[in-house]
Amino acid sequence: MTDLRVGVVGVGVMGADHAERVVRRTAGARLVAVCDADRGRAEALAARLAPVESPGIRVVDDPLDLIAADDVDAVILASPGFAHAEQLFACLEQGKPVLCEKPLTMDAASALEVVEAEHKGGRQLIQVGFMRRFDPEYAALKELLDSGELGRPLLLHNVHRNKSVAPAFRSEMIVRDSMVHEVDVARWLFGAEITRITVHTPKPTSLVGDGVLDPQLAVFELANGAMADVEVFVNFQVGYEVRCEAVAERGSATIGLGSGVLTRAGGQWGGAMPADFRVRFEQAYDIEVQRWVDATVRGEIDGPSAWDGYAAAAVCEAGLESLQTGRPAEVVIADRGTVLG
Amino acid sequence: MTDLRVGVVGVGVMGADHAERVVRRTAGARLVAVCDADRGRAEALAARLAPVESPGIRVVDDPLDLIAADDVDAVILASPGFAHAEQLFACLEQGKPVLCEKPLTMDAASALEVVEAEHKGGRQLIQVGFMRRFDPEYAALKELLDSGELGRPLLLHNVHRNKSVAPAFRSEMIVRDSMVHEVDVARWLFGAEITRITVHTPKPTSLVGDGVLDPQLAVFELANGAMADVEVFVNFQVGYEVRCEAVAERGSATIGLGSGVLTRAGGQWGGAMPADFRVRFEQAYDIEVQRWVDATVRGEIDGPSAWDGYAAAAVCEAGLESLQTGRPAEVVIADRGTVLG
Amino acid sequence: MTDLRVGVVGVGVMGADHAERVVRRTAGARLVAVCDADRGRAEALAARLAPVESPGIRVVDDPLDLIAADDVDAVILASPGFAHAEQLFACLEQGKPVLCEKPLTMDAASALEVVEAEHKGGRQLIQVGFMRRFDPEYAALKELLDSGELGRPLLLHNVHRNKSVAPAFRSEMIVRDSMVHEVDVARWLFGAEITRITVHTPKPTSLVGDGVLDPQLAVFELANGAMADVEVFVNFQVGYEVRCEAVAERGSATIGLGSGVLTRAGGQWGGAMPADFRVRFEQAYDIEVQRWVDATVRGEIDGPSAWDGYAAAAVCEAGLESLQTGRPAEVVIADRGTVLG
Amino acid sequence: MTDLRVGVVGVGVMGADHAERVVRRTAGARLVAVCDADRGRAEALAARLAPVESPGIRVVDDPLDLIAADDVDAVILASPGFAHAEQLFACLEQGKPVLCEKPLTMDAASALEVVEAEHKGGRQLIQVGFMRRFDPEYAALKELLDSGELGRPLLLHNVHRNKSVAPAFRSEMIVRDSMVHEVDVARWLFGAEITRITVHTPKPTSLVGDGVLDPQLAVFELANGAMADVEVFVNFQVGYEVRCEAVAERGSATIGLGSGVLTRAGGQWGGAMPADFRVRFEQAYDIEVQRWVDATVRGEIDGPSAWDGYAAAAVCEAGLESLQTGRPAEVVIADRGTVLG
Repeated sequence: MTDLRVGVVGVGVMGADHAERVVRRTAGARLVAVCDADRGRAEALAARLAPVESPGIRVVDDPLDLIAADDVDAVILASPGFAHAEQLFACLEQGKPVLCEKPLTMDAASALEVVEAEHKGGRQLIQVGFMRRFDPEYAALKELLDSGELGRPLLLHNVHRNKSVAPAFRSEMIVRDSMVHEVDVARWLFGAEITRITVHTPKPTSLVGDGVLDPQLAVFELANGAMADVEVFVNFQVGYEVRCEAVAERGSATIGLGSGVLTRAGGQWGGAMPADFRVRFEQAYDIEVQRWVDATVRGEIDGPSAWDGYAAAAVCEAGLESLQTGRPAEVVIADRGTVLG
Repeated sequence: MTDLRVGVVGVGVMGADHAERVVRRTAGARLVAVCDADRGRAEALAARLAPVESPGIRVVDDPLDLIAADDVDAVILASPGFAHAEQLFACLEQGKPVLCEKPLTMDAASALEVVEAEHKGGRQLIQVGFMRRFDPEYAALKELLDSGELGRPLLLHNVHRNKSVAPAFRSEMIVRDSMVHEVDVARWLFGAEITRITVHTPKPTSLVGDGVLDPQLAVFELANGAMADVEVFVNFQVGYEVRCEAVAERGSATIGLGSGVLTRAGGQWGGAMPADFRVRFEQAYDIEVQRWVDATVRGEIDGPSAWDGYAAAAVCEAGLESLQTGRPAEVVIADRGTVLG
Repeated sequence: MTDLRVGVVGVGVMGADHAERVVRRTAGARLVAVCDADRGRAEALAARLAPVESPGIRVVDDPLDLIAADDVDAVILASPGFAHAEQLFACLEQGKPVLCEKPLTMDAASALEVVEAEHKGGRQLIQVGFMRRFDPEYAALKELLDSGELGRPLLLHNVHRNKSVAPAFRSEMIVRDSMVHEVDVARWLFGAEITRITVHTPKPTSLVGDGVLDPQLAVFELANGAMADVEVFVNFQVGYEVRCEAVAERGSATIGLGSGVLTRAGGQWGGAMPADFRVRFEQAYDIEVQRWVDATVRGEIDGPSAWDGYAAAAVCEAGLESLQTGRPAEVVIADRGTVLG
Repeated sequence: MTDLRVGVVGVGVMGADHAERVVRRTAGARLVAVCDADRGRAEALAARLAPVESPGIRVVDDPLDLIAADDVDAVILASPGFAHAEQLFACLEQGKPVLCEKPLTMDAASALEVVEAEHKGGRQLIQVGFMRRFDPEYAALKELLDSGELGRPLLLHNVHRNKSVAPAFRSEMIVRDSMVHEVDVARWLFGAEITRITVHTPKPTSLVGDGVLDPQLAVFELANGAMADVEVFVNFQVGYEVRCEAVAERGSATIGLGSGVLTRAGGQWGGAMPADFRVRFEQAYDIEVQRWVDATVRGEIDGPSAWDGYAAAAVCEAGLESLQTGRPAEVVIADRGTVLG
């Protein structure tokens, strides 16, 4: 099987990140084309990523051209939200799978048109960038709730904080660009549509421009009777923080604290121990091999060397001696300078 | 640039894991050959990984043939430790980069020969599988210690526990296969060779076969005067657990608790907040895009759909209404069955 | 100075607890009288607490008699809420200080009458049992907020959960007897009155009787523009849990996790290390001395004995030898049976 | 029963603390006499504590006079360690119960003489100040280990750190005054004597005077085959920290993290939820009542007032309205200035 040839539309922060991800950390895919309203930005990115990608990454001017290009199998849309509708229709027309950053479109009416157009085409082509569903912690929380172990979900508490945002980030964007994540999280985790929403606005922080209502406290009511609340605070000053606690009939489960799913159930609080080293160190192994591949291609070593292996062997040998004698054992090791000249 | 063509020698638990990693989660590499004393095991693995890899994965009988093969650019050695020496010499002879699982070889003398042979060849080709150096938490701890912020390191406390091991795992293996990780960790984190080691053996757990000294408590003395202790307990029953606390002149730093580096310094305990969403959710984005690529190749959608994008848009629209009015707003959403037929 | 002579009205769960507290863990006070609608309950309590209290604890039938008694200097009211108004007026009339369990009275009108009567008397005599203000964690949070270090408070998130309550605990009591604690916490921590309240009721847990709206999610708006939310869930099944996070302009602070005030500020999360052993072990010292006093009165030893002091001395002596020699030292200790016969 | 009349010998940091504890936070005891080599220090303390204690606290010059005094029922010894032996013998002679700060005496031989003298007297009178046994966390750990739930204990890891100590605090004192706590903890928790000890000394921190070996890393071997290690670091700079993890055949349990006993067992890590509000808030109730008693004696209010009770009632009344209507309810509250003039 040949690699999936991907084109990225929009290479601002998010799009550039995705482009680099395709090139450097994704198996089975190849970045073939990028496109941005700022052509210079697209060219700089292509040049930066090209060394490890051959035959190179084309820079395309018109997003619709990129979407239509023969050598593009699939598209990542990271353009501004207002451009999504036209580009999504183009993807549908071309029959090309597309990963579209949120929001799908700017309002419900145009989003519904997109849904209907895709449905008419007879094949699902669009995935929306609600990436929390892929976070291992969120995924584990979803699995726990679906298992029924905690009983029926009743309440969901969410916290969504950014260190700070540009002054141009207005009250409406707090709803449409930030809170939209928790909208998806609530629908997905609890498996029901949201039927009513109340957005409360406490007196705003003074560390934000006039007229921006930040933080906001929203309450969602779901079709199944459950409820959710969410604090969105995009000028929190401290750092980025996303947390979520689901409260169910027989316990609660919290994620976003960094140590997996923290449950409160059966009289206990806590979490699961990893079953083995692959669970605990999977990411370390992935990074080890990716960096070894990258360094090998460059003709370098980027990790523990043969000397490190030798030194460890010398210590273990002394350790075995101590294990047998019960006494301290001296480590006999060659002089590094002498050996490696 | 073409992909690095990798061959894997030994496809037991660790080797099969590495093989799958190369195929499914590593950019810029391609698995071309596997080899195992149990040919059936190698064939099953090749068949399982082949569907997404073309022109297929060869199964080779003799590890030395795999190492010598023209279409193998680099080798991952996951064979038993006693086979490493011969295979490493073959890699050196062929001038092929090799990622060798620990231990490098079975004793210090043979390991030194490997080091000398590589040195004679004039080019570093061997990397040893001390993968903790690539764990983001260990790497952050190393960076913190090297920054000098906590002053000179004095002590390192390590805990290394497995849920359980096969009865064949004897006292010696606890030193050579388990403790060896902490041997490397101590040397690497503190930047000094180990000069003396004492292995204490408390009365063993009764949940292990006769004569196996488990747990063990070792004390390392380093050339720079620092010390380390390590509990290795390979039949802990509870799960896998690796923790490490470095104690320095002005504070301590602990990893392995799941929430990054926990420092005690300046009168405070705690850790760093992620600066932005890319730090917190990098892994989620990686998984999102990898799964999107994989599903797209299969002609499927494996994530939030256009409907999810539409539903979120409808909720946000009501949210904007509530933001303006200060009152609850009803969410107007089309009937899913009607739209999607 | 002689001890404060205290009478307790109502010796159900809370009142019995307070009575025992006065007798066993409070310096400078003496329990002289108890009173309960169930005289047998009061007698049993008096008998249980009498051995360590002389000249004994009187059982009084009429709460108003207890309040008026010459040998009662101050009163703890732990009677049912509907009885408070009359008893409080009696305390005011007698000029006796009173610690009144919440709620002060059953409605705002009668509570205001109590306030006015006390004010007319010219001296504050009434303290209400909002005991969270005395919890070291809540007190530390208050201190932190008042310091201004985190800037102006914006939002307060509260969680208040009980394992379960009697079936007679109705929806109204969730507001009046449970949520009332967070009402006080919000007013006290943020230093402003609550001006508006919304009580949301998700679909109730199925583990509660018909018609009881549990859990509840309330939103408070404060006179200074800040807001608070509170989940009250009195049939949580898991255990008792009270948490609270204050969000301010420059960071947040959480309590109720068991490890003091957890702050998120200045790019860090964490808490303060105790400055010295008295901070960390104050409670241990208090318990040590109280138990030593209690045991001494009974003519017993209830802690580490002289033998324990001797054994520790023997180990330390060997430790000093090892410190000098750098080698293991054997501990020389007498045979306990021989010494202690 | 009348109060136990206590005399305190030595009113340095620890003794003054104990004296205040007897006066202010201990039920059933009365401080009648203090004694110190520095008479001025004793007088200042007596004066400071006298206001709440009548008929006053005598200052005695000679510790032996204090011990022999007719109005002293029991003695707290907080004098320097070298003075303990003589004072303990005096207590035994007088038949007076004594709580003796650690160390019991300065060496094993004199400690054994004390044990023998007490034994000869036929009645246990001496308790040693190993106060960790009274820390709720240590006590819970002991209870857990004794329950057998985790199987036989194998290893104990201890950390004992001080922010800093006076320059006069030498290497020997690290063993005798600091490590002695862990000596007792290991013996007590694991129920066996220590038979061998090794004190390792890494290169000392540079933030301490010449010749002081700090930190130290000791290994204890116990008579039942279990082992313990302890880091003592008395110039840690950061703060005070005492932690301890017991490793047993089926799991481990850690205390000193601030959130009770953290267990790793049965595939899970975590702790117990408090069963009810009295467990969670016992300390808050104790503080509430003690402060209410103290303030009442002074004729003051030191807690939530009647107004706070009224304001809470007003909010709850609005809450009940919202509960019924499902809509926000305005809080109707009188003007404080008008009511309270």
